[in-house]
Amino acid sequence: MTLRIDRLQADHYLLPLPRVLEDSMHGAMSGFEVVTARVTDSDGAEGVGYTFTCGVNGGAIADILGREMPPRVEGRDPSLIEAIWKDLWWAFHYGGRGGPTVLALSALDMALWDLKAKRANLPLWRLLGGYDPKVPCYAGGIDLDLSPQELVEQTHHNLARGHRAIKMKVGRDRLSEDVAKLAALREAFGADMPLMADANMKYTVDQAIRAARAFREFDLVWFEEPIPPDDPLGHRRVLAEGGIPVASGENLRSLWDFRLAIENGVTFPEPDVTNCGGITPFMKIARLAEAFHLPVTSHGAHDITVQLLAACPNRSYLEAHGFGLEAYVEHPLVIANGQAIAPDRPGHGVAFDWDKLEPLRA
Amino acid sequence: MTLRIDRLQADHYLLPLPRVLEDSMHGAMSGFEVVTARVTDSDGAEGVGYTFTCGVNGGAIADILGREMPPRVEGRDPSLIEAIWKDLWWAFHYGGRGGPTVLALSALDMALWDLKAKRANLPLWRLLGGYDPKVPCYAGGIDLDLSPQELVEQTHHNLARGHRAIKMKVGRDRLSEDVAKLAALREAFGADMPLMADANMKYTVDQAIRAARAFREFDLVWFEEPIPPDDPLGHRRVLAEGGIPVASGENLRSLWDFRLAIENGVTFPEPDVTNCGGITPFMKIARLAEAFHLPVTSHGAHDITVQLLAACPNRSYLEAHGFGLEAYVEHPLVIANGQAIAPDRPGHGVAFDWDKLEPLRA
Repeated sequence: MTLRIDRLQADHYLLPLPRVLEDSMHGAMSGFEVVTARVTDSDGAEGVGYTFTCGVNGGAIADILGREMPPRVEGRDPSLIEAIWKDLWWAFHYGGRGGPTVLALSALDMALWDLKAKRANLPLWRLLGGYDPKVPCYAGGIDLDLSPQELVEQTHHNLARGHRAIKMKVGRDRLSEDVAKLAALREAFGADMPLMADANMKYTVDQAIRAARAFREFDLVWFEEPIPPDDPLGHRRVLAEGGIPVASGENLRSLWDFRLAIENGVTFPEPDVTNCGGITPFMKIARLAEAFHLPVTSHGAHDITVQLLAACPNRSYLEAHGFGLEAYVEHPLVIANGQAIAPDRPGHGVAFDWDKLEPLRA
Repeated sequence: MTLRIDRLQADHYLLPLPRVLEDSMHGAMSGFEVVTARVTDSDGAEGVGYTFTCGVNGGAIADILGREMPPRVEGRDPSLIEAIWKDLWWAFHYGGRGGPTVLALSALDMALWDLKAKRANLPLWRLLGGYDPKVPCYAGGIDLDLSPQELVEQTHHNLARGHRAIKMKVGRDRLSEDVAKLAALREAFGADMPLMADANMKYTVDQAIRAARAFREFDLVWFEEPIPPDDPLGHRRVLAEGGIPVASGENLRSLWDFRLAIENGVTFPEPDVTNCGGITPFMKIARLAEAFHLPVTSHGAHDITVQLLAACPNRSYLEAHGFGLEAYVEHPLVIANGQAIAPDRPGHGVAFDWDKLEPLRA
């Protein structure tokens, strides 16, 4: 019996943050928007997906996902994800191919994979190939405004929570302040703690090379988003002249964006399953990285992404960063000894507490 | 006295087409969506902009332009367009950098330039530098489904309307059908009529090379969108191995996309002012093309774009294609002897008939 998609439902929530966060380019963030996708098949089974924003574009995503996509997916066979994905990519290409369209598509695609894995009674990481459910992870803080001492305190707290690897923001107006913070972490936690730095696209190519050289003595695992993604060729110079590995990807929106990035100096491709087009392109990006003998790391949505990296032999560190969503899911991600564990529940294993989310509807 | 933006208003309309149109990749189109932007300054002057879609994403654009952008632009000095543009690009970058976000930004940017030129009491083409108000143009039909004979008839009609250059769609499943249509046009109208072919991203690189070689004998001005824009490097092979000029750009969404395209085999960059980010990036793209010794052509919005190409010494043919909008503006574009004339009215010179649009509100 072939199943059909009976319903696609989108919901838009605004999750306040306990305190305003700041990075070098997105400015002050007082909350995150979450847009969820629920797909119900003709047998009554449900798959769930979501995407999020830093506070803008959520209405556009909800309009595409909740108003424009349903007539294009309802009635279709939910097991043909590649076919649905390709048709939607082209149906929304003019005015799509990036932006809110791809975030909406990501949420839908995630819901379809959740549904597929639930129906197969398999956790997603096993469905996708199965490598190792224990995925090394790191704590990624939005901490550009912290002093060196505050950063050390935050890191003690993260280590106590089970983390063993740490990423910090860089991109202060004075490079010496970034250097002082890196030095404080190395002094407090030693030479071997895996440490990453994230500039959130702050620099020009020349500035990034200058920063990379200043950071080199701190033995970073990677230097993340040194420059905007709109200059793929610029990353080649940052890598070659800066002399430390380069991560990028949270602002790339397709498999093809990643191919350009990988061919031009991004040695840690970093897709975000909620904005790269979903699980379908995320896995292709991970396999593309493997073809180039590269690791794959991640951005955001750690509870879903742990399932994906657990299916990849070339997985690097998972970013553990939940922007408060963990308060609204039944089983928050477990982290111990620097590892996140992909659960063995069917599907991606994330179940929202819809009643608790209801008052936050946008 | 410094002026302020008092108000940004967005409106969303659905313009039905007299008959359903089809190209090789967008499928059947029964109407276009138009989203307008009206900016009013503290002196009561108004600038108008618009963007359009093939029928999807209009709601997302209207939400961004009408709900999310106003609090970010109201109160600002409308003459500082570069500052407003850059701030919005970054405010909407996460979940932006493409898609509906950039179409919304395009409409706003167009309104700001209209306002600036009106306040200066200059037509836009003079404000932007001033080259020549007579811009060569071509008739671009959405005519993939026409027979050779129907295409010849349509072309007679277009020549009678004042056109001297013609673009037709290619990308039939059988290449021989495209070739037959090109042959019919050359037989009916001779060797010298400027003729272009548009594949709307239908082909793979190898297919595009095969098609280009089959089209070579018809001496095309350019071969448009042979492959998807997501493969900038692929255009290099199409140009070198296909052996005819390559146009692309209606699906590129930034100055930086165009830089990659121009460096990789696109010899006729073709920005669309309603989706490349507006007049601000359109003019930069035109000047970038000039720096590369390339012409610049255009897509869509001919009534606005004639003003922009009239400011460019390297302007090539303007696409004259109004998707029915001319029925809702006070002074539709005048075309005679293969040329469109940039009007000398202040601003971009396009004034909507709002009462006539009202019943088409989405």
